[in-house]
Amino acid sequence: MQAVRVALGEHAYEVLIGADLVGRADLLLPHLPAKRAVIVTNEVVAPLYLERVAAPLRGIGVEVTTVVLPDGEDQKTLGTVDRVYGAMLAARCDRRTVVIALGGGVIGDMAGFAAATFMRGVPFIQIPTTLLAQVDSSVGGKTGVNHPLGKNMIGAFHQPVLVLADSETLATLPARELSAGIAEIVKHGLIRDLGFFEWLEANMEQIVARDPEALAHAVRRSVEIKADIVARDPTERGERALLNLGHTFGHAIEAGLGFGTWLHGEAVAAGMVMAAELSRRLGHLSDADVGRIRNLLNRAGLPAAGPALSAARYVELMSVDKKAQAGQIRFVLLSRLGEAHIRERTPADALAGTLDACTTVG
Amino acid sequence: MQAVRVALGEHAYEVLIGADLVGRADLLLPHLPAKRAVIVTNEVVAPLYLERVAAPLRGIGVEVTTVVLPDGEDQKTLGTVDRVYGAMLAARCDRRTVVIALGGGVIGDMAGFAAATFMRGVPFIQIPTTLLAQVDSSVGGKTGVNHPLGKNMIGAFHQPVLVLADSETLATLPARELSAGIAEIVKHGLIRDLGFFEWLEANMEQIVARDPEALAHAVRRSVEIKADIVARDPTERGERALLNLGHTFGHAIEAGLGFGTWLHGEAVAAGMVMAAELSRRLGHLSDADVGRIRNLLNRAGLPAAGPALSAARYVELMSVDKKAQAGQIRFVLLSRLGEAHIRERTPADALAGTLDACTTVG
Repeated sequence: MQAVRVALGEHAYEVLIGADLVGRADLLLPHLPAKRAVIVTNEVVAPLYLERVAAPLRGIGVEVTTVVLPDGEDQKTLGTVDRVYGAMLAARCDRRTVVIALGGGVIGDMAGFAAATFMRGVPFIQIPTTLLAQVDSSVGGKTGVNHPLGKNMIGAFHQPVLVLADSETLATLPARELSAGIAEIVKHGLIRDLGFFEWLEANMEQIVARDPEALAHAVRRSVEIKADIVARDPTERGERALLNLGHTFGHAIEAGLGFGTWLHGEAVAAGMVMAAELSRRLGHLSDADVGRIRNLLNRAGLPAAGPALSAARYVELMSVDKKAQAGQIRFVLLSRLGEAHIRERTPADALAGTLDACTTVG
Repeated sequence: MQAVRVALGEHAYEVLIGADLVGRADLLLPHLPAKRAVIVTNEVVAPLYLERVAAPLRGIGVEVTTVVLPDGEDQKTLGTVDRVYGAMLAARCDRRTVVIALGGGVIGDMAGFAAATFMRGVPFIQIPTTLLAQVDSSVGGKTGVNHPLGKNMIGAFHQPVLVLADSETLATLPARELSAGIAEIVKHGLIRDLGFFEWLEANMEQIVARDPEALAHAVRRSVEIKADIVARDPTERGERALLNLGHTFGHAIEAGLGFGTWLHGEAVAAGMVMAAELSRRLGHLSDADVGRIRNLLNRAGLPAAGPALSAARYVELMSVDKKAQAGQIRFVLLSRLGEAHIRERTPADALAGTLDACTTVG
């Protein structure tokens, strides 16, 4: 087991990475002051892991309530979170009850938002069971739900008190979801660490084959990079926005196709290629750099181009994105492989050329 | 105009108290970094004050969106807040948009919660138009909505950047709502300041008659007391809970009769008499002390006894209250007039006697 500390002052916490952690009630117990917990999961994860978490907790005297939600990004709504509130109130949970999120990013976002807003905030623990959640959404305290008019528009910053990233849960993950997680791992290399990007180029086949050592290294280095950035900017006023590389384009893809059609990581992968192409057109990257990114994502089974929405539709979808300020679209661009920056205004022709070059013909 | 500072470090803000403040766009402008605001109000307040706030803002170049919600405590739901999100997204508000709450406590709680959770948090300004909101809910950062299973069960701490308490808005306030606000003023005297309680005993008729000087003093001293307590305990881990004097009984009254039947301040008034009676039975107050409280509340036009619910029903309603911990009911009790403390466990006979003595026969 390895531990990565997220240094957030009084909100600091540890991400524990290793095998067979989901059943380790002893790791959870120090964070359950009233021996009272609510496990929030979904109908896909519940049969695999719910009792593996709940039974050992009950065995050491913890009162456990379980909430099993429907699966899917289209369930990430205020209405679904309201079911969590209802279950917690019906079970007479109080302010010292701890919410445990057991599942992927959707469950983590919703359970985290419920924890952030139940009685104005109770503690929560993340047990991410997808690669995407382990390397991305379970670290950093972003919680929330979608609104019909935009993704992640309703939410709160609420840091977990503990994250357990169990590599064994990745064995049962569908291949497409594994790939989606790899997209965020590649992103961490691209924005911060050329050496890690090169390590990914050398080890992508092992990762895709779920070699335990390769996966463990990829998860740990990703969490370290994200933890380091989040610790310096917990509420995304500056540097943390670099983690949105590929996300402005990616959100447009997800919203344009309807949430859930592409996985978030797939949309981010195509979005990163678009961000790289835009960076190239603005003089930051070479043709070869863009090719390396495209090639690495292809080897991970990820799309390297966006769907054939019109350029006008992309711009429309990106300008309601919450990263927009006063109508301008902000992009995260690459300065070079391993380093990123924010650009507030982008020449219209560079954006149009990027959209033209990086979308598939419908 | 007087200013009371709420000393909350990087979240510090001022409460400005005086006449004709609602139209003072110059006071709001320094807090509108992108010259973009959403005014959230209700259909009762809108005809009186909405244009008085909005027109001067537009006059100095602020882009203003308005959201007029239905009136009433029964509207304080997640569904109503969702309308605010929808209006803000439709108007393409971004993270630098400021939410302005114009109305009483219900509007302040909902607009504040929308601000706390829109794109994970935008700034907000309170313009409270009721006495209750001026002396209580607009100071301290508590925001949220009710759930069918409990009052204020969903929410967040989110401090305003400015509060404008305009005494002129109190001239149009119905007498019953004025009284409801006085309940919280009396509470501030009871928990912290015997001298202020005695000043209220000497000046209650002037307050009820809306004498501007008496009202201004009562508002200012109340805000000072609350600001002082909140500054030392912004998230209610300790001392701040003293502000809940009368609220555990009061919430049971509101929930038992159905939210909106009694005003919040009316329920708190009866709840304070019950808390005083319980304090007397536990040896802290004299008969005469309880009589002074009852008498002062009567002179303010407030109920000094709860409705005739059964004792079992009161206990049931109080134990789902969020102030409950692990099934125990916590009460705020008076140590003497002007000083309060928290009690975790209360003898059943003292509670039963209190409920018997302080509820009206149905």
